[in-house]
Amino acid sequence: MLVVPLIERKRDGGALTPEEWSALIAAYTAGNVPDYQLAALLMAVVFRGLERTELAALTDAMIASGDRLSFDGWSVPRIDKHSTGGVGDKVSLVLAPLVAACGVAVPMMSGRGLGHTGGTLDKLEAIPGFRTRLSLTEAKAQLQKIGCVLIGQTPEIAPADKRLYALRDVTGTVEAIPLIAASIMSKKLAEGLTGLVLDVKHGSGAFLPPTELGLELAKTMIALGEDRGCPTVALLTAMDRPLGRACGNSLETEEAILAVRGEGPEDLMEVTYALGVEMLLAAKVEKTPAKARQRLENALSSGLAAEKLEQVIEAQGGNPNIVEDPSVMPQAQAVEVFAAPQSGVVTRVEPRTIGRAVVALGGGRTKVDDEVDPSVGFVITVKPGDKVLQGEPIASLFARDAAGVKLGFEALAQAIQIGDRLGERPLPLISHRVTRAGVEVLTKEPAKAKRR
Amino acid sequence: MLVVPLIERKRDGGALTPEEWSALIAAYTAGNVPDYQLAALLMAVVFRGLERTELAALTDAMIASGDRLSFDGWSVPRIDKHSTGGVGDKVSLVLAPLVAACGVAVPMMSGRGLGHTGGTLDKLEAIPGFRTRLSLTEAKAQLQKIGCVLIGQTPEIAPADKRLYALRDVTGTVEAIPLIAASIMSKKLAEGLTGLVLDVKHGSGAFLPPTELGLELAKTMIALGEDRGCPTVALLTAMDRPLGRACGNSLETEEAILAVRGEGPEDLMEVTYALGVEMLLAAKVEKTPAKARQRLENALSSGLAAEKLEQVIEAQGGNPNIVEDPSVMPQAQAVEVFAAPQSGVVTRVEPRTIGRAVVALGGGRTKVDDEVDPSVGFVITVKPGDKVLQGEPIASLFARDAAGVKLGFEALAQAIQIGDRLGERPLPLISHRVTRAGVEVLTKEPAKAKRR
Repeated sequence: MLVVPLIERKRDGGALTPEEWSALIAAYTAGNVPDYQLAALLMAVVFRGLERTELAALTDAMIASGDRLSFDGWSVPRIDKHSTGGVGDKVSLVLAPLVAACGVAVPMMSGRGLGHTGGTLDKLEAIPGFRTRLSLTEAKAQLQKIGCVLIGQTPEIAPADKRLYALRDVTGTVEAIPLIAASIMSKKLAEGLTGLVLDVKHGSGAFLPPTELGLELAKTMIALGEDRGCPTVALLTAMDRPLGRACGNSLETEEAILAVRGEGPEDLMEVTYALGVEMLLAAKVEKTPAKARQRLENALSSGLAAEKLEQVIEAQGGNPNIVEDPSVMPQAQAVEVFAAPQSGVVTRVEPRTIGRAVVALGGGRTKVDDEVDPSVGFVITVKPGDKVLQGEPIASLFARDAAGVKLGFEALAQAIQIGDRLGERPLPLISHRVTRAGVEVLTKEPAKAKRR
Repeated sequence: MLVVPLIERKRDGGALTPEEWSALIAAYTAGNVPDYQLAALLMAVVFRGLERTELAALTDAMIASGDRLSFDGWSVPRIDKHSTGGVGDKVSLVLAPLVAACGVAVPMMSGRGLGHTGGTLDKLEAIPGFRTRLSLTEAKAQLQKIGCVLIGQTPEIAPADKRLYALRDVTGTVEAIPLIAASIMSKKLAEGLTGLVLDVKHGSGAFLPPTELGLELAKTMIALGEDRGCPTVALLTAMDRPLGRACGNSLETEEAILAVRGEGPEDLMEVTYALGVEMLLAAKVEKTPAKARQRLENALSSGLAAEKLEQVIEAQGGNPNIVEDPSVMPQAQAVEVFAAPQSGVVTRVEPRTIGRAVVALGGGRTKVDDEVDPSVGFVITVKPGDKVLQGEPIASLFARDAAGVKLGFEALAQAIQIGDRLGERPLPLISHRVTRAGVEVLTKEPAKAKRR
């Protein structure tokens, strides 16, 4: 096919037809269009964007490049949640069994850590024996049997997205909202969902920090989902500080297990409940937010959610005893306490600094094939707005060795800022609800700082 | 080297340092940076442009990728002319021997036909035996011996430009003024010139039709040349109609030979003289435009220019008798006369239609390795503004066969538009003179249509 006229048209502000997008992605996936032509086209898309019909065609072409799950005749609602990623974001591990315990099937396909943000797959793999690589057939069978499966992107799902993502990663074309939306939605829409809930992070630790960009991404993904018959809702949640207390794979998995057992930190629980309410409403198992919330709280307090998590771990080859005793996970060699260097008010807990430090400690990747050490990380027990006294313990640091301890202390000293007064207000924990109907502002006032 | 941060910086509106451009081009030429990364960066440059220091560094890096001619101790001024290309533009073939006959060395490195525009090399190769592929050593020796050499880009000159140009051609990144300027100037500045004159075409048949873009390109190239110690001047000339009468390789070479002998069409001579005046002034062999023009006219009328052309043709292996008798060049099988289909005023002679028809007749390339038939083309004896009577011969058509005749007639009928009155005025033949000091508008009124 003649690719140069397509590149030139996009470069000059025009649009490709759906047929052109379809043929282009098929030819690229088949190896008949060189990477350099796609790279030039993707950079033109960064500047010119995609029209709604183009974005739909690109997404459809990426879905069509692989298999999609189908559940003909199975009436159980299937709802997934996707987060754009953050630091300390272990919501999936709590939410998936919790919502599944309320009678909704949750086929959750997650990713690995990327840049400064962690990934659900890495957290799951902190559980000894846990397999995240299931075939589509295994995943479907497990979903129909126990209502929940937690896996990585399989090779059968949207292989065009996999190739395009790898190219974007090395050509400076990752940060384009239509390309991000097409990438996320092509994978999610291949899961055969009856509804999708998006957790779009904003704030300094988010992939796209500005609130406006988060809203634009949310609207773009919602339009894509709704146009393809998948009801889609998004919440904008705060990522100007880590979510919960733990940052690092096994530390986060432990915090998630405690949360499933009813002992989670308040901010983590609020985000989990808010997303869970949307999932139950989308599944039509409850009609009002209040009833959905009550059902979720019951599933947690009754132990049903914890039981569901045990079932999932067992089904995927992990040691289910971990839910009773998280200490079976890898433990760090060096554990140190970080004390407040001065008295005052915590003004910032900078998530990027913390996320990068977890990677530097060995808990994330700088190259695709790096080994991850699940044991390292931080537990930070203060939030912006909290008052602290000099010498008071405000964080723990988990490292492999003395070098890690030094690096971790430096990161904590840099990330946790203490001043006379709060200054810049933190973002509301859950600030916007976005549906096809529009944007609803949930909190005009920033949420109060959470107690330790 | 890490290329992604450079791509991202350019994408986001920043600049690369001169050292970064230098290292990047060196690494790319050595095969250590993949095409897809350069393609993405070039597309970002299409949107963001290059700062003056970046453009200089890119040009310098392309020059540094190859050899450059040096003439240490040789005091003869060396001036070249570059045209951005058009239809019927055979100026180089007249200008080079004419200026050389005035005591200026002219090391002219030309290109082949590109898209709808012809190329000087293809016109030269219509001369039986003429060699355009000389080594740098041969070219330098000939220049010092007879003051003029007419060659193609050698492999030693700016090889990075050659690779980059090939990549731009297949990635929709040709039409970016800084990239065009760097490509042209890297080759010209490697010739060891003491001055450079640019013929920047504007109008519908030009590479960049809008006058503003022509001016911007001129200014960009002048800044590059001047900053590198090469005095550079540009004239903007009309390409909203073909230049001269002949379009097609041997037809144009014949017209150029007639022009060197003093029998050229008025518009071709005016453009040639105007550029020649600039070259003599740049060479400092004359001090005023009037004296320079007089010297050029004398060189033509005395036969010195024709003699110089014979010397060049002989030195480069061609048959010098061609200057006396151009009919030794390949002749077309089919020659037909095109008559005015109606009476009226010629309103347009659309150069793109004519240029594309020459290619379709076999006189240009659609692929790099196409063979060119030098014999085909058109001689169009009317200009916009001319009055014609129905049935009057206004063009000749030279083709290989009946299919070519049909195609040629259709092109002439489409290109030559006849109406009741002129309507849109043609561009002034020579409209702007651009120097480092600024832009001088040469003709406020459009030039009068030339008589046949």
